[in-house]
Amino acid sequence: MSKNSRVPNDSFTTMTELVLPNDTNTLNNLMGGRLLHLMDIAAAISAQKHSGRIVVTASVDNVSFQEPIALGDVLTLQARVTRAFTSSMEVYIEVTAENIPAGIRKATNKAFYTFVAVDQMGKPINVPELIPQTQEEQELFAGALRRRQLRLILAKRMKPEDATELKSLFFS
Amino acid sequence: MSKNSRVPNDSFTTMTELVLPNDTNTLNNLMGGRLLHLMDIAAAISAQKHSGRIVVTASVDNVSFQEPIALGDVLTLQARVTRAFTSSMEVYIEVTAENIPAGIRKATNKAFYTFVAVDQMGKPINVPELIPQTQEEQELFAGALRRRQLRLILAKRMKPEDATELKSLFFS
Amino acid sequence: MSKNSRVPNDSFTTMTELVLPNDTNTLNNLMGGRLLHLMDIAAAISAQKHSGRIVVTASVDNVSFQEPIALGDVLTLQARVTRAFTSSMEVYIEVTAENIPAGIRKATNKAFYTFVAVDQMGKPINVPELIPQTQEEQELFAGALRRRQLRLILAKRMKPEDATELKSLFFS
Amino acid sequence: MSKNSRVPNDSFTTMTELVLPNDTNTLNNLMGGRLLHLMDIAAAISAQKHSGRIVVTASVDNVSFQEPIALGDVLTLQARVTRAFTSSMEVYIEVTAENIPAGIRKATNKAFYTFVAVDQMGKPINVPELIPQTQEEQELFAGALRRRQLRLILAKRMKPEDATELKSLFFS
Amino acid sequence: MSKNSRVPNDSFTTMTELVLPNDTNTLNNLMGGRLLHLMDIAAAISAQKHSGRIVVTASVDNVSFQEPIALGDVLTLQARVTRAFTSSMEVYIEVTAENIPAGIRKATNKAFYTFVAVDQMGKPINVPELIPQTQEEQELFAGALRRRQLRLILAKRMKPEDATELKSLFFS
Amino acid sequence: MSKNSRVPNDSFTTMTELVLPNDTNTLNNLMGGRLLHLMDIAAAISAQKHSGRIVVTASVDNVSFQEPIALGDVLTLQARVTRAFTSSMEVYIEVTAENIPAGIRKATNKAFYTFVAVDQMGKPINVPELIPQTQEEQELFAGALRRRQLRLILAKRMKPEDATELKSLFFS
Repeated sequence: MSKNSRVPNDSFTTMTELVLPNDTNTLNNLMGGRLLHLMDIAAAISAQKHSGRIVVTASVDNVSFQEPIALGDVLTLQARVTRAFTSSMEVYIEVTAENIPAGIRKATNKAFYTFVAVDQMGKPINVPELIPQTQEEQELFAGALRRRQLRLILAKRMKPEDATELKSLFFS
Repeated sequence: MSKNSRVPNDSFTTMTELVLPNDTNTLNNLMGGRLLHLMDIAAAISAQKHSGRIVVTASVDNVSFQEPIALGDVLTLQARVTRAFTSSMEVYIEVTAENIPAGIRKATNKAFYTFVAVDQMGKPINVPELIPQTQEEQELFAGALRRRQLRLILAKRMKPEDATELKSLFFS
Repeated sequence: MSKNSRVPNDSFTTMTELVLPNDTNTLNNLMGGRLLHLMDIAAAISAQKHSGRIVVTASVDNVSFQEPIALGDVLTLQARVTRAFTSSMEVYIEVTAENIPAGIRKATNKAFYTFVAVDQMGKPINVPELIPQTQEEQELFAGALRRRQLRLILAKRMKPEDATELKSLFFS
Repeated sequence: MSKNSRVPNDSFTTMTELVLPNDTNTLNNLMGGRLLHLMDIAAAISAQKHSGRIVVTASVDNVSFQEPIALGDVLTLQARVTRAFTSSMEVYIEVTAENIPAGIRKATNKAFYTFVAVDQMGKPINVPELIPQTQEEQELFAGALRRRQLRLILAKRMKPEDATELKSLFFS
Repeated sequence: MSKNSRVPNDSFTTMTELVLPNDTNTLNNLMGGRLLHLMDIAAAISAQKHSGRIVVTASVDNVSFQEPIALGDVLTLQARVTRAFTSSMEVYIEVTAENIPAGIRKATNKAFYTFVAVDQMGKPINVPELIPQTQEEQELFAGALRRRQLRLILAKRMKPEDATELKSLFFS
Repeated sequence: MSKNSRVPNDSFTTMTELVLPNDTNTLNNLMGGRLLHLMDIAAAISAQKHSGRIVVTASVDNVSFQEPIALGDVLTLQARVTRAFTSSMEVYIEVTAENIPAGIRKATNKAFYTFVAVDQMGKPINVPELIPQTQEEQELFAGALRRRQLRLILAKRMKPEDATELKSLFFS
């Protein structure tokens, strides 16, 4: 593997957090915004590991919250880079929540964040490419192009008709 | 206006925050995840005002971060409900950051969060409808349907070919 | 309006906060000191807007706490400058607390803070004057002189017999 | 000393705090509101010690901030009850700040807070009386009546012409 | 493996944390007490995983801090149970700190914490035994007895002359 | 007393803290790690007072937690230097917890932390010697040598057979 490439395991990051009172709403459940904050930190560390650089958050894709997570639960966040572009990286994060005394563990959230590697002045800087290894990693790598087109359209930086990869989502 | 409807102004919420050291990265800029957390709180309060209920975050749509926000900047978050569905509400949040001593003010982010109104047991409960008033509010109201289809597709709860509203994004 | 004057609306600041567990005492009510902290931040941002400068807290006047504010309540703090002196500004803050699911909203506190505008070295620097517009603003503007004399006496920097404005409080 | 009286030493409370980054403004000085928060906690503990009860903040008197306190300074807050009324107590707090490596120590602030003792339902409940011991304690005890009249006038719960104690401030 | 035994991997816990401004002293290095706090959380989660119970910290053994850890570093804490006694567990935690942009990674701390498993009333409750697998795990398992005797002596709950295991530390 | 010596009272530090929701576990008791954090801050301030220098934590000795401390309790931490070595200091900390409304006060923890005095570059620097005054202070001073040998052995920086002071613990 050359200096200018990394495998997903190089950026693999596991974060474990206890849900504390100040993280919760009046139903004693974790607030969505607090989880978005934790996912950003886990993903940023993963992007740092891939690039060996300071990184800044460029975007978060749609995240849905379907499972309540309770006060006292143990959160596990697992993040790894799925694809690198010139100076940016897409990171995939999976969250599980566990009520250990009750013996209940559930997958609760997944998200894609993107980061830009920057130098000390905050200017974008090139990052190593990502070489996917497993089949799951290859699928995440391939899908990254489609997700990127969606981000560009939503940020009004690409015309929908040019999003050839994304269209396959609707007409495959 | 009936008991069962609200106008966007009823849920209008302004939040002002100072960017503190613990909110920043090693470049002294606000971390993206912290901003996602603040937007979630502002939007949740807005959804509470519309529904008069406890609300839980159901999703956040794609958010991009294009402008760095510095330590000491004053953040202004403005949130209001754009459309209500059975028990859920879409909230639009706009963020501006201001370096007051430097006289610089910039629009930095906008986002759509959705919330579900729940009772004391956490069960979904109906919310009043939203009646848009201004032209901008009507456009946000109309677009809410398209954004909802995109959320459902991304959550794999709708087939792309059924997303008739969303398709117009690509072929209008 | 000249460069060297501002109207109260120029410094109007709205802050919305959720009362979180760590803000509360063992009765699950907001601690007074936490509210004094939030009012200071809202008022400081208001004074920054008026002066376009870094500001430091110079004083807070007597504040009374007559209404308990509960965990989960939504606080709204509204601040604006009432009068400017050479390098200092008086800011008036009004607080309301709302239990949205219960449909209860109450005015809970009001306070006057003063701030001094400073340069990067922390030295006081002149601020624009404040031109009150409405009748309420004119009354606040007029009362600022009396409150200032009371502050100076309490800080033992003015002799009570020289406080001509303040005396009218007792003998009007 | 009967069960129903206490001396100031019974409620003497010393709190030591390190000024941390998140407590400071962009000049790296402690924010006034954070200090008001810390003084409230120290004073509340003092009032708890006097009364043996849960206490809630009733008011803070005018506080002025004349000395900047820097990041890394060590704060010492000393609080004790100065006088008890039916169910309320006045607490006097003195703050010193020390830059230990520089060998600089300065008295920075003093304040009077009042608290009401409450039962588990939040209802006011009688407190022991305070018997001052030293001459300084007797002066604080005597002045408490005057400060109380000022609070009542400022809260519009006493007419200025009835504040016989306070008038002596202006015409002694 | 029976229901009443676990292997060290069952309790393996990885925690990743970013060193934030409020965690640091005036040299911009992580404060020792903050690291002790993070190690306690990582170790408690590990003990929860082993026992499937609520756990409370019983002790921490001597911890030394020989390497400064800087603001912005990424901390990795890895914890696993080394031995179980009736209702208590010893957990071993290793900490590494990484300055990713500088490409520097160092092992900084290791510690042993012990926890007691408790029921909902806070009463101690039996835990599964721990069956070490690898040679390193067997050595940690064996040493746990010696460390336990040292803890009991230091807590004055065992006479030094009865600490047969510990003596071997001095006369082996 | 010369410039180069101090008595224990010179470094005496009292810290008072309220146990807040975010400090507690799901049994509403103070987490051990949070207490270790508070003891580190109190002890560091004490070592600063003795040395007049910036200090960094070098070690904490075995600490045991035998008494639960509840949400709302008032913690009192008292710290003072027990002995100075070339550039390091041992600090003794005693913790009491008080449930004031219940009238219950208990000694809960004691600990020894050591600190190194450093200059602005983080290099160790000599500290004044400590001259114990009372009999208790003399015993703490004498024991400091034994505790130091134990620390060095545990850090594998001294051979057990050279720990002549420590051996007396086992064979006195």
